[in-house]
Amino acid sequence: MEPPCELELQVAVAKVSKYAVSESGDTVETIERPHGGLSIVLVDGQRSGKSAKAISNIVARKAVSLLADGVRDGAAARAAHDYLRTQRSGQVSATLDIVSVDLATRTIVVSRNSHCPVIVVTGSDLRLLDEPSEAIGIHARTRPVIAELPIVLDTHLVVFTDGLLTAGERYGQPFDLPAFVRDHLQAGQHVPRPKGVPDASCAAGVWRPAGHATEGSGDPATSAQTLPAQYAGALADALLARAVELDQGRPGDDISVVVLSVVSRQAPDAVRRLAVRFPI
Amino acid sequence: MEPPCELELQVAVAKVSKYAVSESGDTVETIERPHGGLSIVLVDGQRSGKSAKAISNIVARKAVSLLADGVRDGAAARAAHDYLRTQRSGQVSATLDIVSVDLATRTIVVSRNSHCPVIVVTGSDLRLLDEPSEAIGIHARTRPVIAELPIVLDTHLVVFTDGLLTAGERYGQPFDLPAFVRDHLQAGQHVPRPKGVPDASCAAGVWRPAGHATEGSGDPATSAQTLPAQYAGALADALLARAVELDQGRPGDDISVVVLSVVSRQAPDAVRRLAVRFPI
Repeated sequence: MEPPCELELQVAVAKVSKYAVSESGDTVETIERPHGGLSIVLVDGQRSGKSAKAISNIVARKAVSLLADGVRDGAAARAAHDYLRTQRSGQVSATLDIVSVDLATRTIVVSRNSHCPVIVVTGSDLRLLDEPSEAIGIHARTRPVIAELPIVLDTHLVVFTDGLLTAGERYGQPFDLPAFVRDHLQAGQHVPRPKGVPDASCAAGVWRPAGHATEGSGDPATSAQTLPAQYAGALADALLARAVELDQGRPGDDISVVVLSVVSRQAPDAVRRLAVRFPI
Repeated sequence: MEPPCELELQVAVAKVSKYAVSESGDTVETIERPHGGLSIVLVDGQRSGKSAKAISNIVARKAVSLLADGVRDGAAARAAHDYLRTQRSGQVSATLDIVSVDLATRTIVVSRNSHCPVIVVTGSDLRLLDEPSEAIGIHARTRPVIAELPIVLDTHLVVFTDGLLTAGERYGQPFDLPAFVRDHLQAGQHVPRPKGVPDASCAAGVWRPAGHATEGSGDPATSAQTLPAQYAGALADALLARAVELDQGRPGDDISVVVLSVVSRQAPDAVRRLAVRFPI
């Protein structure tokens, strides 16, 4: 019998604020799910700068805190809406996306309260989650549009705020996001194989992690965190870089991109890793 | 006048669970601080496996939720203690470390409720934050031991659970953590310079980011998330790898390592990045 296919989850977030505004009005948080897996919460507060940040912060905080308590995603999104609407008397809106990797159900759950679509690529198939969906904070009884996808090899989700969607529009150069994502993934050069991992598909069952946990000398040059094997990171960075380029180096809005990838296992160990970096 | 030195904050977390136990009893969460910066919460629940995870999860959740509300670190640690002690009638303990990069005060705040020291390296100086400190959950009025450090170039903090501290002890090969950290950082080879960034110290004021945000073609081979410029990640990975090696490939306890580095700016853009990866 073939060994089961070993999968790796990669999540990458890349964010930049509107040109000449020091603070992004977008907030992205990740949180562990109490029954296994993690959730990513992406909020774009109305307008930009400090006031937008205050909005996105309270919405993200409410959603994250409920998700950490084990509240289901749809209920967390509804509660975040009710909370914002109560706090701000229905005068202020925000878009809210929650993406959860639920290891209890082995699914990816996408809850959208945003006009921005979510791009889903599975193998060579690309589709949009773009059912009409409204921002939170304004109308009574707003609820999220939810999609549930199986966790399968070679799945990529791209979730973003509208700064990405509208990049380049001011200059008559709209960003064809699905085409860019397709090209990037099809190029197949977006991620060099890590050293020591044969270039074989997981389906062939050829490559298995070598041991329980990190092995070797601790030589940082080959450490997994420094390997270039970040499918999700490469795509998030490429999307953000292209958006900024289309905005001629001066983003017209806060831009946040979240990429979630289910790929064959890249790191030859069972280590869970998280990395954050930003200028201070 | 010299331009101000441009700094980058890097945080890396690497975690592995005890050998033959599927779930780590440690929980690590990061959260944005409402007044700027971020906090990292590291909790080691008593014992290992599912019961330890349940403990570390409720403690981390409580601390993260308070920090997100803007509660000061010392009060969040006290509240997490009171909460655990109330929930579990003083019968269950956990260690709790909170490390905050507070951009309002421009300091790094370390709150320890753990017998594990925190290693602090500033330039060529290495010291331990190792004042006696007790775990939360058991005794009345437990409080954290707090240290506040300035945010300065070339600062590295290493925070960990006792699986790292005791690695190798079963085999008569204790892990000399300070020596390892010093050697790793002094080797200076732990991080190749990223392409396009001259090999000049920040103090010389030579290198400045080239533009407001990501520039260039979006060529993923040079994207910042795939650059090997992860000081913090390389050190976290090296520490974890060495610990697992000393435990002969079978960690005797859950091991979690958090490294926080303040380095000269590596990425030539103003992008904030987060990456998570783990086997599923």
